[in-house]
Amino acid sequence: MAQARDVSEFLIAPDPAAPGLTRAVEGTDQFGAPQTVSVVEERPLTIFLNSREIVTAMTIGDYPDYLALGFLLNQGMLRPDDTVTGVDYDEDIDTVVVRTAGETSFEDKLQKKTRTSGCAVGTVFGDMMEGLEGLTLPQAEVRTSWLYDLAARINRTPSLYLEAGAIHGTVLCRENSPLVYMEDVGRHNAVDKIAGWMFQNGEQGADKILYTTGRLTSEMVIKTALMGIPVLASRSGFTAWGVEIARDIGLTLIGRMRGQRFVCLSGDDRLLRDADPGTVADDPRKARRKGAE
Amino acid sequence: MAQARDVSEFLIAPDPAAPGLTRAVEGTDQFGAPQTVSVVEERPLTIFLNSREIVTAMTIGDYPDYLALGFLLNQGMLRPDDTVTGVDYDEDIDTVVVRTAGETSFEDKLQKKTRTSGCAVGTVFGDMMEGLEGLTLPQAEVRTSWLYDLAARINRTPSLYLEAGAIHGTVLCRENSPLVYMEDVGRHNAVDKIAGWMFQNGEQGADKILYTTGRLTSEMVIKTALMGIPVLASRSGFTAWGVEIARDIGLTLIGRMRGQRFVCLSGDDRLLRDADPGTVADDPRKARRKGAE
Repeated sequence: MAQARDVSEFLIAPDPAAPGLTRAVEGTDQFGAPQTVSVVEERPLTIFLNSREIVTAMTIGDYPDYLALGFLLNQGMLRPDDTVTGVDYDEDIDTVVVRTAGETSFEDKLQKKTRTSGCAVGTVFGDMMEGLEGLTLPQAEVRTSWLYDLAARINRTPSLYLEAGAIHGTVLCRENSPLVYMEDVGRHNAVDKIAGWMFQNGEQGADKILYTTGRLTSEMVIKTALMGIPVLASRSGFTAWGVEIARDIGLTLIGRMRGQRFVCLSGDDRLLRDADPGTVADDPRKARRKGAE
Repeated sequence: MAQARDVSEFLIAPDPAAPGLTRAVEGTDQFGAPQTVSVVEERPLTIFLNSREIVTAMTIGDYPDYLALGFLLNQGMLRPDDTVTGVDYDEDIDTVVVRTAGETSFEDKLQKKTRTSGCAVGTVFGDMMEGLEGLTLPQAEVRTSWLYDLAARINRTPSLYLEAGAIHGTVLCRENSPLVYMEDVGRHNAVDKIAGWMFQNGEQGADKILYTTGRLTSEMVIKTALMGIPVLASRSGFTAWGVEIARDIGLTLIGRMRGQRFVCLSGDDRLLRDADPGTVADDPRKARRKGAE
């Protein structure tokens, strides 16, 4: 097993001490004694695509630009080849506006949709599924030694989760190196922030592994595939539809990673079992994500 | 501590053996050995209010009628005094239509909104907050002995969580009795199903306690208040906004319930500490909700 390296090697790591992300709140414990608890912030962020209001997301509030871009990309509202001319965040009114050179195909579609049935809410998921058509994920190798390294390192990295709980984390990784570690109160925001970061930095997904603390649902699997990432791993469990989609599109899906244990329910052919599970340490007690359910 | 009673005393309890809620999926473990894993189902359900398509929710699929009613109620799209003339579920096309006697005030509002800004997505949260105006939660007593009884009983009740993980649970309780126990893959669906059940059965919230496995976010606090329930308790943690809203509206908010421990961050005045925490057993190992993050 490689030694855990310094957090400074992350391109983006959580900053649990950053002002505005957590708050100390006074309460009482089971004996009635005063207790000060560190809790994560949660605020609304309304995302606009050009002049159109798209959604209000509940977010911890860091990286609103990546969140807006990633959300629009993962919903198929913005295409990777659209030219983004600006991302304007206005903290006072909790809005972020993504501007494109021309009108996007989504805006055109939404216009039509609005005229026929009145609202676009119900189409969002269908649009995400549409994005999977013709998508092929690259053949890549995933070594179990990388997965064990990644889990150990991520679990030991200072995070808002370790500070305050009640938050989800997602980490973009290459081989055994975690690169970008995002956290958010919104279940999918952490993933969307990574998609936004990849878009802004021209990063491709083919050589990446996505690690998440959340469940492997259909939406998580679809987002990972749309980001072009062939491997999705999690501490948590699966849903049947998540597994079904992963198998259809050839994504490697690994869940229930705890200490040496994991289960692979799709894309086992990418897995190279080069590590001896017997040498893997148990999860540190603090890393059991008891607060994030 | 009262003895755990028979599950048959629940008005609605989870039915982990019900066909269609879980599926056995073949995979491999860390050694490459075949593993059969029980995973929860997840399917789309599109909710209509009269002729208007409102949302597509991802759900485990039980109680689509309660889910649709509860969702519309908790979003303020349906008012408690609207007359529901029918709830039609069509399994083949995964839709449920809630029909009312007249057009609801929401449909009228949506019509106006659609004409001005094109889509109603962004208004949903604002509408939920609006529903809190003028709302007063009743003064009620909550005994810590009830909370300990409830947690112990709920943790030991056979559930989809214990069977397959990756699912959230919410339980409507009165004093130390859990009454209606709903589970769902969608984080808020379990709560909405309880709201739908209360509406259909004419149950009021004033003498109830809501127990959830999920985090105490703004949305959970608002939904609980809209259901008229003065107490919300959870195994999980808090967000700052959830706490702020609970304090504003006078809701008792209890989190991080594990064995004898808990933290109360709002409405401590309702709490009667009648139990000796030292006599409370630790959570059973199986009940640590490691799969539902």
